[in-house]
Amino acid sequence: MLTARLSYNGPVDVSELGEFGLIERLTRLVAVESPDLIVGPGDDAAVFRSGDQFLIATTDTMVEGVHFDSLFGTWADVGWRALATNVSDIAAMGGTPTFALVTLALPKNTPVGAMDALYAGLGECARAYGVTIAGGDVVRADEVVITVALLGRAETLDGQPLLLRRSAACPGDAIAVTGTLGDSAAGLRRLQESAAMSDYARNRHLRPSPRVDAGQMAVRAGVRCGIDISDGLLQDVGHICEASGAGAILRASSIPLSDALRAAFPDEALELACTGGEDYELVLVGPRDLLAALAGVTVIGEVVAERGVRVLDDDGNEITFERPGWDAFHS
Amino acid sequence: MLTARLSYNGPVDVSELGEFGLIERLTRLVAVESPDLIVGPGDDAAVFRSGDQFLIATTDTMVEGVHFDSLFGTWADVGWRALATNVSDIAAMGGTPTFALVTLALPKNTPVGAMDALYAGLGECARAYGVTIAGGDVVRADEVVITVALLGRAETLDGQPLLLRRSAACPGDAIAVTGTLGDSAAGLRRLQESAAMSDYARNRHLRPSPRVDAGQMAVRAGVRCGIDISDGLLQDVGHICEASGAGAILRASSIPLSDALRAAFPDEALELACTGGEDYELVLVGPRDLLAALAGVTVIGEVVAERGVRVLDDDGNEITFERPGWDAFHS
Repeated sequence: MLTARLSYNGPVDVSELGEFGLIERLTRLVAVESPDLIVGPGDDAAVFRSGDQFLIATTDTMVEGVHFDSLFGTWADVGWRALATNVSDIAAMGGTPTFALVTLALPKNTPVGAMDALYAGLGECARAYGVTIAGGDVVRADEVVITVALLGRAETLDGQPLLLRRSAACPGDAIAVTGTLGDSAAGLRRLQESAAMSDYARNRHLRPSPRVDAGQMAVRAGVRCGIDISDGLLQDVGHICEASGAGAILRASSIPLSDALRAAFPDEALELACTGGEDYELVLVGPRDLLAALAGVTVIGEVVAERGVRVLDDDGNEITFERPGWDAFHS
Repeated sequence: MLTARLSYNGPVDVSELGEFGLIERLTRLVAVESPDLIVGPGDDAAVFRSGDQFLIATTDTMVEGVHFDSLFGTWADVGWRALATNVSDIAAMGGTPTFALVTLALPKNTPVGAMDALYAGLGECARAYGVTIAGGDVVRADEVVITVALLGRAETLDGQPLLLRRSAACPGDAIAVTGTLGDSAAGLRRLQESAAMSDYARNRHLRPSPRVDAGQMAVRAGVRCGIDISDGLLQDVGHICEASGAGAILRASSIPLSDALRAAFPDEALELACTGGEDYELVLVGPRDLLAALAGVTVIGEVVAERGVRVLDDDGNEITFERPGWDAFHS
């Protein structure tokens, strides 16, 4: 580790600060002053004006042994996922993905065929979402690191961008989600246990399908607050609450669970849905009638003034879980 | 290594193919079909239409132990350089850098203060070049990997982008470079030898100053071909020749060398200038009178029909060097 030999002698390492603490700290260090920057650090993606358009930009990284390993299907699955997680960030802003740059950090002895397969999966995902891979970089490293930077275009109305912001939740707003939650975490668990698993759960984990259509539909319908579920429902709703200075109450019995999840994990289905993460569904927040009118969306709770995210059962009792969700340095 | 455990059994690993071979191979796997894509993989950066503008996008990665290590100054230097290499790619297209995304892959025990310093250097470079850091990602990894994705804006004339393309060289064109070459490589060698070195050479290596102004000036003056010197003069001129289907003859005595370089490495100055790399100066190719009229630019040779890049002494004899330049997997 280089860090030990360089001159800094402070007592704190990044794992003490946590992923979100570190991002917040570093973000403060770089002054953001451009009049063209519409959304800076702290949302699912950045947004900036470019001539007569509003561009959305995001980047996500997958590290071997952290975000994927030998349990994780094929290299083609890794490629699909590396792009899909970025597509989901664009969806979470209500935008349309357009161009991607792909960086591969690879050990010297990486088989070329593995990279062929990775690119095949990446290309499949690109075609599925209309993304053009415009370039990238290849460097040598000790472990495989795949970084995708993805650009997208925001919907506009009267020359202004229509966006799903984390900071736009108001007490009284309803909270809804697309699809069903927890399937991806169930798929991962089955993979880790090497247990036979259904193609459904496997694909939900290995080949997530970001909700670009739902994000566009929501933003056109007037919804202005949203996030994608990557860290886990509770944590991602928590990100909205922090950014909006509010709290949330979720109704456990309203959280949409697939029949496959209920059957496979009858006792843990709710926990997997609340904390499992990597669903790449969307959380949408706004007036209840707006959300209720959207196809494929389930209202699961509401925004409240009191801080914190609480899950209640049908009797109004709070349900708690051991692990709130994903943190890059705490997992 | 994951790769060994996954299903691919082919005999070839990426080091056999080399960095450029791998990029070419993977590029072919992802079909590029967007009518908005003006420049795809294979140039210094990608260019695409976005409404009434033409955007330039590039990404570069620095890996601990490969692109920097304990010899490499401070974390602030690493931060500066991580952005500067990307700025240089935008300069090499004749554009203006605008927005950046920064991804940090970090071991858990990375000192927070090291990342503070890295961001301080990054912020310094951002301010120097008018770049806004709009967001990014932080993930856990075993080694420090810093990936910057940078966007820029192309100069335009009558609604068309003005670009420096690798593929635009024609036999008869002159070849010119900005600044002086070899100082960065000399600076690195001095750092590796732990020898005392001048601040000049040190800074040329640790804090490269990409030639955004020169690129803009050139493209406005009508120059249409260029590249930045990252791999080394011979190799980067070689990239232009390959993309243009041509060759080049360079005059050794015309290659601009700093007095500091000549004094420090009297016997190796030319070799450092030709193969050292990381100068982040620009190679510009075009009509001789156009290039000769540009300030701070030195004509060093010409494009010829015969393939290959040759360096000639004043008697017309070819000078050869042991190591042609940088390859990610061969160094």
